[in-house]
Amino acid sequence: MATRVIGAASLTRDLGRWRHDEPGAPAADSAKRPTRPAYVALAESIRLLIHDGRAPLGVALPSERDLATTLAVSRTTVTSAYTLLREHGYLISRQGSRSTVALPPTVVHDGTKPARSILAMMAQPEVATVDLTYAAMSAPPQMTEAYSYALQGLPTYLGTHGMDPVGVLLLREALARRFTDRGVPTAPDQILITLGAQHGLRLLLNVLTTPAERVLIEHPSYPNAIEAIRDVGARPVPVPMRPDGWDMDGIRSAARQTAASVAYLIPDFNNPTGLLMSADERAELAAIARETRMTVIVDESMVDLNLTEGESMPPAASFARGSEIVTIGSASKSFWGGLRVGWVRANQNLIAKLLGTRSTVDLGTPVMDQLATVHLLQHENEILTTRKEQLRSRRATLLDALAEDLPDWRVSPGAGGMSLWAQLPAPVSTALAATAPNHGVLLAAGPRFGVQGAFERFIRLPFTHEEPELRLAVKSIAATYAALTPHAADPLAPLAPLY
Amino acid sequence: MATRVIGAASLTRDLGRWRHDEPGAPAADSAKRPTRPAYVALAESIRLLIHDGRAPLGVALPSERDLATTLAVSRTTVTSAYTLLREHGYLISRQGSRSTVALPPTVVHDGTKPARSILAMMAQPEVATVDLTYAAMSAPPQMTEAYSYALQGLPTYLGTHGMDPVGVLLLREALARRFTDRGVPTAPDQILITLGAQHGLRLLLNVLTTPAERVLIEHPSYPNAIEAIRDVGARPVPVPMRPDGWDMDGIRSAARQTAASVAYLIPDFNNPTGLLMSADERAELAAIARETRMTVIVDESMVDLNLTEGESMPPAASFARGSEIVTIGSASKSFWGGLRVGWVRANQNLIAKLLGTRSTVDLGTPVMDQLATVHLLQHENEILTTRKEQLRSRRATLLDALAEDLPDWRVSPGAGGMSLWAQLPAPVSTALAATAPNHGVLLAAGPRFGVQGAFERFIRLPFTHEEPELRLAVKSIAATYAALTPHAADPLAPLAPLY
Repeated sequence: MATRVIGAASLTRDLGRWRHDEPGAPAADSAKRPTRPAYVALAESIRLLIHDGRAPLGVALPSERDLATTLAVSRTTVTSAYTLLREHGYLISRQGSRSTVALPPTVVHDGTKPARSILAMMAQPEVATVDLTYAAMSAPPQMTEAYSYALQGLPTYLGTHGMDPVGVLLLREALARRFTDRGVPTAPDQILITLGAQHGLRLLLNVLTTPAERVLIEHPSYPNAIEAIRDVGARPVPVPMRPDGWDMDGIRSAARQTAASVAYLIPDFNNPTGLLMSADERAELAAIARETRMTVIVDESMVDLNLTEGESMPPAASFARGSEIVTIGSASKSFWGGLRVGWVRANQNLIAKLLGTRSTVDLGTPVMDQLATVHLLQHENEILTTRKEQLRSRRATLLDALAEDLPDWRVSPGAGGMSLWAQLPAPVSTALAATAPNHGVLLAAGPRFGVQGAFERFIRLPFTHEEPELRLAVKSIAATYAALTPHAADPLAPLAPLY
Repeated sequence: MATRVIGAASLTRDLGRWRHDEPGAPAADSAKRPTRPAYVALAESIRLLIHDGRAPLGVALPSERDLATTLAVSRTTVTSAYTLLREHGYLISRQGSRSTVALPPTVVHDGTKPARSILAMMAQPEVATVDLTYAAMSAPPQMTEAYSYALQGLPTYLGTHGMDPVGVLLLREALARRFTDRGVPTAPDQILITLGAQHGLRLLLNVLTTPAERVLIEHPSYPNAIEAIRDVGARPVPVPMRPDGWDMDGIRSAARQTAASVAYLIPDFNNPTGLLMSADERAELAAIARETRMTVIVDESMVDLNLTEGESMPPAASFARGSEIVTIGSASKSFWGGLRVGWVRANQNLIAKLLGTRSTVDLGTPVMDQLATVHLLQHENEILTTRKEQLRSRRATLLDALAEDLPDWRVSPGAGGMSLWAQLPAPVSTALAATAPNHGVLLAAGPRFGVQGAFERFIRLPFTHEEPELRLAVKSIAATYAALTPHAADPLAPLAPLY
């Protein structure tokens, strides 16, 4: 049987900005200048991919020469990185063949089977794959109707050049009314239409942060947000969440101690935990922001997905007295990810600043998608009622399947959102994600949702797929888990010697 | 008559990132750290807005307190900036009233009328405005049809989560075929679909540049590209164009001397000049890129708008032997700006790198707009034939009107694109743009298309509006011009004392 090979281009893509400073490393002169030798950074980044299952066990890495070429580094850098990985048990080289991905015995072992038994397991034919690395649903049936509506409204805009960095007034008015109805009086010129919440976050980070600045995050948090904070050269400061919610004292003292001028939080159904911040805590958050002169970016992407019978909480921004809370929102989770529409709600000055620099990133949001969003907002009650019923039912199915097939996993669902944050009996999350593809399921390992290698005992399980797929996925996860030792050592323990 | 006032929010928006280093200033430790006192940077930026007509003559600036609050700077900074502007004649304060915008006598004078006569001129009632600050057309009639087609194709994608960072295969295949037909063999996985050419440029700059790096540009060039280069912390290195084309020796020696690793060029109907690079020069450009190991980003936004009877040139990328030429393109100019679709054509390794970091900026291109673009590409011959006829006819109208109303302006149209680059008899471009709004036309001053205050003798005149508007615009420009002295001193001369 031929060994599977990761192409150099594909590995390069997965590596992304591998030269990035390691989170938590001391501040460098310039935020984008690496503080470690390139080969160590490269070895670290490849190891993270192995832990995440993005470089599956048993597959061959590209040749040193190929990888050096595509990464535009010296061959020595790649050779040294591979050597380091080999020394730590992450690569196995057999006579005359390429280096293949492995996990060191300290990571996966059960006393009797050596780590290589994992490789044997991989000889199974590939099975159909359920992708649990994303938490997003397919489109509601109203989507076609929404675009038909947009098509009818389009002629008004066809006579213009169409480039729209602010957003069409119709949509800004609808969103301003929606905020106002939710208790946050808002004028249309306090709304900037973006290409999604992530784009809104990026524009805000461009304007609000300077290199090496601290940005406070709850921990766990949304992986793409953590990456965006790093990509602008700022440094995420994690504040651990408690199992049942936010640690407000922790947020206060982190804000004071690090003098972070910006925070990024998801109080409405945190991604991945689904937890909901209480009204009192929201009031306290706003007070902390005022005390420490910190701008809190509140991500409301999941706000419409309350899966309890209770009321939603008042928006975080309703506790602001000035400009301390900035809200970002999105149509991607409530409606559909193929619709690239999000928004920023802030005071007019900040909206003005965002507009002043947006043209360096993009020239505006598509008109059609904006008009479709107007229609979807008009029908949101009906759409969201169905969506929440689906999510409740899928969550129940996922919980049942987990209780049956993985009874020793601890899962306490949050109040809403699209995922569970499951606690494993042992720190095997990356080992699980690393081997899951061979059992037909793709997982994002817990550490993706944090910094500094945290969350090795956790894994995010989205419940956005249909029930049969969820049941199949849990069977696959259980099979993967059964093949791992339930008391494997902490796989991140050998991290230290790499530095 | 009440004085018009610029709000603090509006001025803040126009100022954008006013703390940015001045182009051409010596390299600072960190690219985003200002090297000048804040009040000088602020004064400089306000002065640029005055020269550009974005802070029109005679209007009052916000109070020092208001502006300090919205910019989040000390009041002393604003006070000092206003004082500096006042000293240089850019602000006039009358007893008990606010500071109003002016131009110093060295900028606008004709010996008999003092600069203040400009203020008198502003007392005219405002007239209907033709906006010549952008070069973009309204949508072609096929746009509705394109979205209807997209709506029919949509069901295929509604069953997925819809987030599409790579681009739908149908569109990538269509673009790959188009490049191949033009003589640049291209596979679909060499295409990344973006949210427009500007977004493609930004993603490329994020991946290809490091702070303080030099990026070679032709001069004049596209203002948003220059801003994007600055926004990633890189420094544009201008290579002056000759009146009839590119200075290849200048590009070669600039590449050698500055060791720029990236260049950004618009060889197909340069914006603003409309000039077209010859095939020999394209071959030479690729050779220079190879010699100096420089990646050339070629912007093909205007490539479909050849307004001569002749053939278009072979694509720049067709002269590449390796990965030295990266192409960015857009549907905005060929079809419509309300459709946010562009692309990057590169080798698979670079596409992989772009994909690896894209999620820090946005999560993908809207599906509907991509499907609509597939339809537009299928009908591009018919759409572009009409579009080019319209542009030829509008350009002829603009040339006629200029010959009649402004016979001393030198205008030699390029081979295509959407604008003329008019040479004025005197360096009054900013004065012209500053006073034009009072005559009912908005202009982008020549210096916007360059760095270091160049192009004071030039102004870009797009011919994307319909004929009656173009004729009206030229009348307005002629009236503005007549009110200025034809031999005004170089308005940027007084720049030096500000430092």
